[in-house]
Amino acid sequence: MSETEISSLGEFGLIEQITKDFPIKNPSTQVGVGDDCAVLNYGTKPEMRTLVTTDVLLEGIHFDLTYTPLRHLGYKAAVVNFSDVYAMNGQPKQITVSLGISKRFTVEHIAELYAGIRLACEQYGVDLVGGDTSASVTGLIISITCIGEGEEGKIVYRNGAADTNLICVTGDLGAAYMGLQLLEREREVGAGQKDFQPDFSGREYILERQLKPEARKDVIAMLKEAGVQPTAMMDVSDGLSSELLHICKESNVGCRIYEDRIPIDYQTAIMAEEMNMNLVTAAMNGGEDYELLFTVPLTDHDKVVNMKGVRLIGRITKPELGAYMVTRDSNEIAIRAQGWNAFTQEDAN
Amino acid sequence: MSETEISSLGEFGLIEQITKDFPIKNPSTQVGVGDDCAVLNYGTKPEMRTLVTTDVLLEGIHFDLTYTPLRHLGYKAAVVNFSDVYAMNGQPKQITVSLGISKRFTVEHIAELYAGIRLACEQYGVDLVGGDTSASVTGLIISITCIGEGEEGKIVYRNGAADTNLICVTGDLGAAYMGLQLLEREREVGAGQKDFQPDFSGREYILERQLKPEARKDVIAMLKEAGVQPTAMMDVSDGLSSELLHICKESNVGCRIYEDRIPIDYQTAIMAEEMNMNLVTAAMNGGEDYELLFTVPLTDHDKVVNMKGVRLIGRITKPELGAYMVTRDSNEIAIRAQGWNAFTQEDAN
Repeated sequence: MSETEISSLGEFGLIEQITKDFPIKNPSTQVGVGDDCAVLNYGTKPEMRTLVTTDVLLEGIHFDLTYTPLRHLGYKAAVVNFSDVYAMNGQPKQITVSLGISKRFTVEHIAELYAGIRLACEQYGVDLVGGDTSASVTGLIISITCIGEGEEGKIVYRNGAADTNLICVTGDLGAAYMGLQLLEREREVGAGQKDFQPDFSGREYILERQLKPEARKDVIAMLKEAGVQPTAMMDVSDGLSSELLHICKESNVGCRIYEDRIPIDYQTAIMAEEMNMNLVTAAMNGGEDYELLFTVPLTDHDKVVNMKGVRLIGRITKPELGAYMVTRDSNEIAIRAQGWNAFTQEDAN
Repeated sequence: MSETEISSLGEFGLIEQITKDFPIKNPSTQVGVGDDCAVLNYGTKPEMRTLVTTDVLLEGIHFDLTYTPLRHLGYKAAVVNFSDVYAMNGQPKQITVSLGISKRFTVEHIAELYAGIRLACEQYGVDLVGGDTSASVTGLIISITCIGEGEEGKIVYRNGAADTNLICVTGDLGAAYMGLQLLEREREVGAGQKDFQPDFSGREYILERQLKPEARKDVIAMLKEAGVQPTAMMDVSDGLSSELLHICKESNVGCRIYEDRIPIDYQTAIMAEEMNMNLVTAAMNGGEDYELLFTVPLTDHDKVVNMKGVRLIGRITKPELGAYMVTRDSNEIAIRAQGWNAFTQEDAN
């Protein structure tokens, strides 16, 4: 790959080169990149609401470029924002991308990052409408804001869960976390060795979950199709424990989930055993799954129980009953948020 | 001031503490901080358009905390985003604030930063609706996205300037840049000296322009009041030269501006002389003025010529005439963008 110093293009040249290949896909995107602001038009349907979410990803905290391809990073940075919009039962429509770029990055690096962002935008039907690009003193900084829309009365918050509601989670949990453990292990094994080639065969799933997660657009469509309106919903970014406690707190309820109902992939289990880690802890607290955690009325039981990719893991209770996991041997363990916390976990990266 | 480590609160605790004092001011803000997304309602007026802009501010690149109070920095970080919305002839309504925070910052530091953001939100009638907060490896990272609204047909882009249009600029230019020079000089003078007290008396204006700039909400109101619809508009963030060239390029026009018409404050002139710097260069290329540069039809001459705080500095020409400044001695100098460029100016911070 040829290398072009960013200083040779300047900020405006870089933006122009990078954003010229992003076609506009949504009627609500009236004007995209290139002026002081993007112009969005959400004025035509009175029942539609605009959703806004933002995430910042920092090198050395959220990602390690020794094993994260820039293209994957761009894809993931966009998708995690889309995931927040789906978690409201909305549809992502536009993003802005702000970057801080240190001197060791070339124009080709940034083009790779944007190739991933572009792919994510294509896959999810989202328009890039603006951003800000700056030099940084150290490392790569990615800040993405996503704007989407949701229908009044259909938007799902965290505070709507009620006693007897069923708790559902999509896909499987802990795989992204075990993928990260694998990448970290191989990085340490390969440190200092030139041309070290880690062997990832048979581990492709957990690696992909870590490096190129998807947002559950499909589940949102499936729920709509089935006529299921969740009472509360979140995406699992910090870990199932942390998200469950958020819903319990915001909805003023308790919950019981069942250890044997937590969906875990085979590769995740193998990896946890190999690394001598507790599998359920990884699934409950690993985070970065970007699956959907949601609650539905008991009357929707028959609809969700056979829904593809959806697992019923427990039920909402009265608040005084607390938040507990029922283990395989019928003990009750209090759910604690051990989710990834960049401010406290020294060993997080 | 007491000092609380951020790790003692965690991300959620920090956000909760910091955002609890931000009352919601706009009917379009349906749900603010606390869920996956903010929910905005722009659906009621079909003629309204949603505007989105974003800016990232990085320690060591955009600001130096040895002389920038965190409260001022918060204020400025918010205001520069509002300025982008006004530059479209719109009104800012909501912001999201994402932070990357290194270990040397305490909860009190972040509260100071947010106090400034809060003051800016109060002054400009804007709601804080979300954000993301993370640890950073080094330094403070501030990424703000602002959402606003503008009326279809009234929104002003960069591409509407036409031959014979008048070029106007608000306030005065170069003061923020000379304020920065003063702060840098005093930092160098005081380096290593404990309890060094720089003498800023008589320099308050240029310091305030650098540390606590304002967006020209008042000018937008005044133009509306006077029935003046600019044909093109930008805010002066990178410097007048750079912004003029943007408008010329986007509108496919040329321009003539007159050196003796460029508005410069007395303190700016004194400071430039004291530092042996070219005053006009500072005014043309200094940047961070956050004034409005706009063009109006020739027929609006009488309206803008007596408008308070607005200076007529030149006119738009056919594109083949190029972009030039006419000097006091009637020479023509090609306008070149020497605006602040974080990617190329090694000495910028």
